[in-house]
Amino acid sequence: MTHLIAICGGSGSGKTFISRALRDNLPCPTAILSYDSYYRDQGHLPVEARDLLNYDDPAMLDEELLLAHLAALREGKTIDIPQYDFATHTREQVTRPFSPKDIVIVEGIMVMQLPKDTYDYVIYVDAESDVRLARRLQRDLTQRGRTAEGVIKQYLSSVKPMHLKYVEPAKQKADFVFENDDNDGIDEKQMTALLSDIKEKLFH
Amino acid sequence: MTHLIAICGGSGSGKTFISRALRDNLPCPTAILSYDSYYRDQGHLPVEARDLLNYDDPAMLDEELLLAHLAALREGKTIDIPQYDFATHTREQVTRPFSPKDIVIVEGIMVMQLPKDTYDYVIYVDAESDVRLARRLQRDLTQRGRTAEGVIKQYLSSVKPMHLKYVEPAKQKADFVFENDDNDGIDEKQMTALLSDIKEKLFH
Repeated sequence: MTHLIAICGGSGSGKTFISRALRDNLPCPTAILSYDSYYRDQGHLPVEARDLLNYDDPAMLDEELLLAHLAALREGKTIDIPQYDFATHTREQVTRPFSPKDIVIVEGIMVMQLPKDTYDYVIYVDAESDVRLARRLQRDLTQRGRTAEGVIKQYLSSVKPMHLKYVEPAKQKADFVFENDDNDGIDEKQMTALLSDIKEKLFH
Repeated sequence: MTHLIAICGGSGSGKTFISRALRDNLPCPTAILSYDSYYRDQGHLPVEARDLLNYDDPAMLDEELLLAHLAALREGKTIDIPQYDFATHTREQVTRPFSPKDIVIVEGIMVMQLPKDTYDYVIYVDAESDVRLARRLQRDLTQRGRTAEGVIKQYLSSVKPMHLKYVEPAKQKADFVFENDDNDGIDEKQMTALLSDIKEKLFH
């Protein structure tokens, strides 16, 4: 029996960090599935046209495929996760097999665009907007070789409005809001409370 | 008779922009005085030591001199504003004469560290923290030749905590909170309401 835990939150909130910390602290086999792998293939468009799309819009993600995959995991089946190439905005020919675990953490900015009852438990990772922008800048400048000017422009024109429209409302529906403003490692007190609440609600 | 209007708000809130728009809209002689001119001279310290100081701390500003200057303006006297050199953290030998006007707008992050009754009217320019960080980055990268990494580091370690401690609380004491999140020019509706309120409270 696979339990599904959603980890939602804005860009730079620290979803990956919290997902890994949770996986490492859960006392049963746990794996992480990233909704980022489910970006739709844009290979039918000319390369220049692909760059003009708004990738912060939830419609860019293959909701149907993720829903089918999560249902399959619940039935104990192994799924084949698409391998998305962010440089070309296309799916690679190969997929990655992913087998069900006791708990699968489904993380992504837009995971709460799926019906809430898709998941057994929902965590919203929260951080102040300036802290999130700072983290996004630090990541994009060091790991993705982008310019500060470009990151800020995209943040204000697309990331922020999409966040307010689609992501922030998910906070109200979450079972647990993890406050993640500090950059000094995991908050043990909140992690303990989270583990206790998951145990209570999923395995009572 | 000189009336003093304080314009307070965090880094990147748009104080300068709102100050100029207000000056241009007020129907009487108005001038802007920036608290930034009142940074204390650090010439007694070795150059390397000067760079290590926390310039986001209100203690770095010469509160006594600003208070004396504002009192002088109220008495109809011309003051000599220090010319601060941000590169060397020192005051230049020359000063700039500034004569009283019907209205003097005193703008700066820390203007509300002076007693509230220093001013006849207080405006707090408000903007979301991510918008403010984005503006600060854009300004510091283009006009001050700094690196994004350096700006972000200073923002998180010093600008943000000082903002929460000293600047944000001033919002509660303001006569008018000007919401300035958009980057598309002045919000005419708020400006009209502000001018009307100033007229009511200062010139009734």
